[in-house]
Amino acid sequence: MIIRETKIRVCYGDTDKMGVVYHGTYARYFEIGRNEWLRSFGITYRNVEEAGIVWPVRNLQITYLKPAYYDDLLTIRTIVQDLPLLRFHIKTEIYNETGDLLCHGEITLISTNPQTGKPVKTPQWLIEKLKFLDQT
Amino acid sequence: MIIRETKIRVCYGDTDKMGVVYHGTYARYFEIGRNEWLRSFGITYRNVEEAGIVWPVRNLQITYLKPAYYDDLLTIRTIVQDLPLLRFHIKTEIYNETGDLLCHGEITLISTNPQTGKPVKTPQWLIEKLKFLDQT
Amino acid sequence: MIIRETKIRVCYGDTDKMGVVYHGTYARYFEIGRNEWLRSFGITYRNVEEAGIVWPVRNLQITYLKPAYYDDLLTIRTIVQDLPLLRFHIKTEIYNETGDLLCHGEITLISTNPQTGKPVKTPQWLIEKLKFLDQT
Amino acid sequence: MIIRETKIRVCYGDTDKMGVVYHGTYARYFEIGRNEWLRSFGITYRNVEEAGIVWPVRNLQITYLKPAYYDDLLTIRTIVQDLPLLRFHIKTEIYNETGDLLCHGEITLISTNPQTGKPVKTPQWLIEKLKFLDQT
Repeated sequence: MIIRETKIRVCYGDTDKMGVVYHGTYARYFEIGRNEWLRSFGITYRNVEEAGIVWPVRNLQITYLKPAYYDDLLTIRTIVQDLPLLRFHIKTEIYNETGDLLCHGEITLISTNPQTGKPVKTPQWLIEKLKFLDQT
Repeated sequence: MIIRETKIRVCYGDTDKMGVVYHGTYARYFEIGRNEWLRSFGITYRNVEEAGIVWPVRNLQITYLKPAYYDDLLTIRTIVQDLPLLRFHIKTEIYNETGDLLCHGEITLISTNPQTGKPVKTPQWLIEKLKFLDQT
Repeated sequence: MIIRETKIRVCYGDTDKMGVVYHGTYARYFEIGRNEWLRSFGITYRNVEEAGIVWPVRNLQITYLKPAYYDDLLTIRTIVQDLPLLRFHIKTEIYNETGDLLCHGEITLISTNPQTGKPVKTPQWLIEKLKFLDQT
Repeated sequence: MIIRETKIRVCYGDTDKMGVVYHGTYARYFEIGRNEWLRSFGITYRNVEEAGIVWPVRNLQITYLKPAYYDDLLTIRTIVQDLPLLRFHIKTEIYNETGDLLCHGEITLISTNPQTGKPVKTPQWLIEKLKFLDQT
């Protein structure tokens, strides 16, 4: 299991008239967490696409426990349990500065060939990169 | 079970570099469906708030089956099975113009007092409005 | 001068914690106005792209006079003074239901070849379509 | 003249089907620049609001020169020439990692009483804070 953390500051545009972060904004926060999780391995999702693969979202699930407010510095914790072979799952938790768990969720991605739209195995070199760093 | 439908046209800002609607955009589409579902009863979520109640999102779940593209005219089908008493569930399905089911999901809302943050029963007059139209 | 109008309903996700529509949301509303302006000629921006042209934004200017609120039904008035030859300007005004002018602005687009990134003349067939309807 | 810089990483949700950052997304980037400009003085816009003042946007202007791409690390340069007394102007420039100027613009804010909606002078303590750091 690999855990990575990144921070995001809530801006005005992320909030809604209830005075808190709009529930739909969290999909973006989750994405930022995944981007930085991948970057921690020395690769980016841009590299994945350059390798001829896309990872469209198959399922998104978020449970909201407490609100986040404007200017909060949030911690996005990204938790990956399985290697991105074909279909894989990424868990995300978001905390505020006082350590409260604000929401948690899971996203399912499917490694896909953008030309055919069919599932495709992640190339070995990418797997190796992720495996290697798994052991450190 | 009450079903209501509304339409939305995909704009450029809803898409991402994969050439399709960004997965996070659907939370907004689902919300638009709920707004119009409520309007079909002659009330709006603004009325709910004026009655001293908010309906924050407790859980969001979306399964993505096929992509939506720029300029697609989508049909948002909102399916409500239980009256909004305390905790209630709203199902949503989105279709494109050829009738393909693009995604389906469910959102859980909790009727809440915005001052205390505690769950609170939906007032009777609001329930009656929703009941009345249920029978038509 | 061609004027077209379309309507948009403000959703929760469009607002911010000041209780009004976030100023950045209006770029999206302006875009929706342009999309419907083009559709009124029987073409869509998708057709423009299929003809091998893109219209990236060169300049955006918005003056905000009054706020828009959740659930307001806004009228987007799109005003086009020059044919989309190379560089062209589209004015937009947004009104609420009581007829108040909420904001006005202008966007400048440049007809561009997406491969070279260079300005390119809009093809004659597209110009003709826009001219034809100008006279009706 | 006070200049502050902050960084932002472009996420997928910021892009559109042209493969670049959606032009409307920049309003959000500009806002993040202003937030961090203010934070560099030891205050936040949350403090401004707690002091009974809001700074709604009166005018927004952006000129787009070059596109930003997914995963680009952008530098947001915020340039403030006048103290936020009543009506004040904030310039913003955005650069990519190779130092290209991608866009520049200006936003005009009006110090406002949220109850009356009337312009109101920024309180002296806030001015002093901004003045003090101006000299360092």
